[in-house]
Parts: sequence; structure tokens; C-alpha cells
Amino acid sequence: MDPSKVNVPPAMNMTIDNITQNTVLINSQAQDPRLTFVLERLVSHVHDFARETRLSSKEWMASIQFLTEVGQMCSDVRQEFILLSDILGLSLLVDSIDHPKPPHSTEGSVLGPFHTHEAEHKENGEAISHDKNGEPLLVLCTIKDSNGKPVEGAKVDIWETDSSGHYDVQYADRDGPDGRVVIKSKEDGSFWFKAIKPVPYPIPHDGPVGKLLQKLHRHAFRPSHMHFMFEKPGYDHLITALYLRGDPYETSDAVFGVKESLLVDLEPADDATATQYHVKPGTLVLKYDFVLVSDKEADDLRDEKSRQALAALGRRVKIIDGLPVPDVD
Amino acid sequence: MDPSKVNVPPAMNMTIDNITQNTVLINSQAQDPRLTFVLERLVSHVHDFARETRLSSKEWMASIQFLTEVGQMCSDVRQEFILLSDILGLSLLVDSIDHPKPPHSTEGSVLGPFHTHEAEHKENGEAISHDKNGEPLLVLCTIKDSNGKPVEGAKVDIWETDSSGHYDVQYADRDGPDGRVVIKSKEDGSFWFKAIKPVPYPIPHDGPVGKLLQKLHRHAFRPSHMHFMFEKPGYDHLITALYLRGDPYETSDAVFGVKESLLVDLEPADDATATQYHVKPGTLVLKYDFVLVSDKEADDLRDEKSRQALAALGRRVKIIDGLPVPDVD
Repeated sequence: MDPSKVNVPPAMNMTIDNITQNTVLINSQAQDPRLTFVLERLVSHVHDFARETRLSSKEWMASIQFLTEVGQMCSDVRQEFILLSDILGLSLLVDSIDHPKPPHSTEGSVLGPFHTHEAEHKENGEAISHDKNGEPLLVLCTIKDSNGKPVEGAKVDIWETDSSGHYDVQYADRDGPDGRVVIKSKEDGSFWFKAIKPVPYPIPHDGPVGKLLQKLHRHAFRPSHMHFMFEKPGYDHLITALYLRGDPYETSDAVFGVKESLLVDLEPADDATATQYHVKPGTLVLKYDFVLVSDKEADDLRDEKSRQALAALGRRVKIIDGLPVPDVD
Repeated sequence: MDPSKVNVPPAMNMTIDNITQNTVLINSQAQDPRLTFVLERLVSHVHDFARETRLSSKEWMASIQFLTEVGQMCSDVRQEFILLSDILGLSLLVDSIDHPKPPHSTEGSVLGPFHTHEAEHKENGEAISHDKNGEPLLVLCTIKDSNGKPVEGAKVDIWETDSSGHYDVQYADRDGPDGRVVIKSKEDGSFWFKAIKPVPYPIPHDGPVGKLLQKLHRHAFRPSHMHFMFEKPGYDHLITALYLRGDPYETSDAVFGVKESLLVDLEPADDATATQYHVKPGTLVLKYDFVLVSDKEADDLRDEKSRQALAALGRRVKIIDGLPVPDVD
């Protein structure tokens, strides 16, 4: 910004006690009230964190180095900052805030760092994994809205690891997407495909986030799961996953994703099912009925919860597009 | 961490309201009470930030991308995370917390991202800058302790930009350090050297931090200054800078470093000074008397201020080595 075009509020002699208000003030010149509010809360919390912990210069420098390593670990196929957000519970929290769910709708779960935009669009019934070592799994699902009406033509993104617990993008020598697909739901709201039984796996832990987990005496494992993401105009974006009940990491997911309502039991296919879906009898079957929330339901709920949270905070803010901004009236 | 060796407290069904306490709990298994406390405050503040702003998934993703860009901008000669900390007032705050100053001692200022460990050790009186376009400056300083006793043999790191406002490391084709030096103070506590008159300059703003400043309608300039860092066993590490009074950015330093007590006036050398220090009469002279604080004075003050801050917070913590940890008694 050209300094001659900027009217910066004067600030000198900054101390422990006046730096926050002055930083907030200097950050309040933009004409974007949402940016101003987010920065105000960010600066306040970062400063309070330093003041409350009496953060030392040595710890500050270690934090700078840690964040730098996290950034430098990122590549086209590795998102270490998402992993950091995941293991600190932030990802789950943000999803819960942004996608509030009325009772009886499908709950959300963490996106994780392995969703890509390169999955092939396939027809219902096709196989999404080419891993011959995986245990075959037939997945039979339906999508309904909160009134029980089938949702046709929803775009469903599905992704899972191979039988060794690795996503396709974790292989340097891969020759294309695998273990991921995009399917459209049919007229009756159903969609189905062939996959492999999910396995537990550790999140990538050879980087700075793995070192942090080690320091915290935490393990890096996620319980067996399959990711699902739903998009259809008029419906709130749903990012979720289904988890196999009884997994050893069911209650200790490194990224806090498991919810009781997302646990599934796999059952062997009976003869009728096997014939209908062209699988061997006894093949494991995963069945789930998803319930999507309309944009309007989600917007109203988000708005209501924002108002409640900010009333509890005692702040003079107003809600615009479901997001709070300072109320200057 | 081998999962079989970890006793993770069970956590499932995480919501906006229970995720924080569960994340804090799972992070509390290490045997390092300071790490536990710092992580507890970090998680609490990060989560409160998301809850208070009702952070959206889109904003979260933009933040992930911003932090990734900051990390990827970092190199051996560029520390974008320090710049980010600087422009958010965090660097100044941490220095103020970790290096409390009794009255009449020299105040601290921001380290910035341009200190290196490759400065040449030189004798008093030598030139630290080879920039022929710079306006010559004679720098005459003394160091005393808080009792007025000269401090001999202190290691003094000094660094400044060239006349175009760039540090040596900002040139890809440089052939060695310039504009920086390490000098030892003499028996009478004095040290002196030849430099060039500091000029105002913008912090590097071609990266994500520069883009953020632009969004916030802030300029990137720092007022004219010269960095000083003092080290001597028994004395608290002093990181500071001297600022030229009357600089156009005196009250709008992009990184909040200026303090009244660090402002200096340059005066032309009289004949006696010129003769004594082998400079032309009329050469600009910067004079400053630094006052270092003993380790004990700093430790006592740090401890006292920590106790005050934590008492105000109403937290049950104890102070170990000047830093708070949870008090489990």
C-alpha cells in the first residue's frame, strides 16, 4: 500500500498492555467489516495466548520454526497444515460451526487432507478400488432430504485408502486416481458401488505434525473409515465419513472424527443381494441411509447458533450472511 | 507413538461444545507440564477464535492456504512467519514479556527477520558498511549496567540496511556479509564503529504477508533504524534498535518497534570528535548510552510479572523458571 494513501493511527511506545488495542486499531482501516472482526479476534487471542503463557522468546522461535516446517512439508499431495488443524480438533469444530445439523440428519466429519478433484466420474455399480489385496465390499446407500424425500442427482465424492492404509496420492509412482470416485445418486435417491473394506491407518506422521503427536504422547491412527462428500444445489454441502464399529481406534481417532451415528456394521451379502448386485454370496455389505439438509435449514440454524454464541459473548455484533461482523450502530 | 503404548482418553461424538475439553485432555498425557499448559492455552484460544467468529469452512481453507504460502515463502534468507508475527504485534509483545525492563534500562525492540550469524567480528572503529552511496555515520556508544558500571567485553551485534533500504541477505548475488558486524565493548564499556545513516524501508512485501498488509490498508514501511543485540554472561539478552527522530514512519512502524527512549538525533561531528575518530568534520554522529539489565534483575521481574498476570487470570498455576505451568497440588 502506498504510505501516502494510508492514514495509519499513530502508535509508539508499545507495551504488553497496549499492543493489542493498537494492533486491532491499525488493522481496522479496511472496508471489510468481516475481515476487521476476524482479525480483531485473531490478534486478541494470539496476544492473550502469549500473555497467559508468558511465552518466552525461545518458545516463540521454536513456534516460528515449527510453523515454517509445517509449511515447507506441504506439496500438491501433502497438506500438513490441514493435518495440524485436524489433530488440534479445529477441523471438526469448524465443520460443526459451518454445517450445523438438525436432529435426524447425517452428521458431518473431518474432510482430512486427502480429498482430490481428480476422481473419475463413474456409473453406479462400478468398482472404485483396483487393490486386489483389499477385502471386497459392496456399498449400498440412499440419500433423502429431511422430509424423507429421495434426493436424485446429488454428486457424491467417495474416497478410501487401499488395503495397506494409503491413499493413491501417497504413492509417488501412481499412474492415476484410485480408491476414489464421483457418482450421481439415482432417481430413487440410491447410489451403490464396489469398494474394499476400510482399514485403520496412521495419518502421515513423518513430518512436523507427527513429531508433535510424539511429543504429546499421542498416536497417529485413524479408525477404519470411508469418506463421503455430497453436493447438490439447494442442499448444504455435507462432508462426512462412515466408520466401522468396533475398530481398535474407534474412541481414539487422532483427528476426532468419529460419531456414534456414523458407525456401521458390515454384514455378509445374502443370496438375493449377491445376485442383484453381481457379487459373491457372503461378500461384505455396507448399508447407509444419508439425510441431507437443505440450504435454508442450514442457513437458519447457522444464523440462530451464531446469535446464541455471540449473545453469550456479550459482544455488539450483527449477523450478515450467517457470519458475525462488528455492529457499529 | 506406538498405539499400544499410549493410553488415550476415549473421545467420540465431538461437538462445538465438547471438542475443546477433549482436545486438551488428549494433549495432557506428556510428562512435560509446560508443554501441557502451552497446548491447553493454544487449543482454548484457537477454538474460542473459531467459535466467536463462527469461522466458515471457506475462511478456514483460505487460512490454511495463507499459512501454507507463508511457510513456502520461507528460505535461508527470508523468514515470512517472523514478518507475520511482527506485523501482528506478537514479536514486540513476546520480547516485552520475556525481557522485562526495570526503569532507566534500555528498552527492547523487534528482532525482525534479518539478523544472521555470519557477521564478521571486527575491532572498534572499523566500517560495517561498504555502501559508497550511504551517508557516512559515526556511531559512538557506551554500555553500562543498572548501577552505572561500565560493561566490558559484551558481544554487540549490529545490523543495518544499505542506502537503498536492503539488507545484505536480500541480494541473491551478494559475495558476503555487509552492513552487519560483531564488536566487543572496551574496558570503559564503550564501543564505536563507522556505518551509514539508516533509511526507511518497506519490509519484504512481495509475499503473503505483504498481501495481507494490502488487504488491511496498511503500509509496509519501517522508520530509519539500526539494530543492536547485546550478549554477555550474567546479563539479560537485549535485542533493540535505535530510531532516527522525525522519520516519516516514526509513529506508523509496520512492526510496532518504535519507543520514545530509542529515538536518537544525529549531530554533525565537531573538530575534536572528527580528529579523535578519524572522520571528516561535519560527519553525522549517533551517540547512545545503553543500559543492560542483569540476569537476576530480569528473572525477578519476569517472575513477578508472571505471577501478577496469572493471578489476574484466576488460574491455578505455579511458576517454574519464570514460566507458568499448571499447579496440580
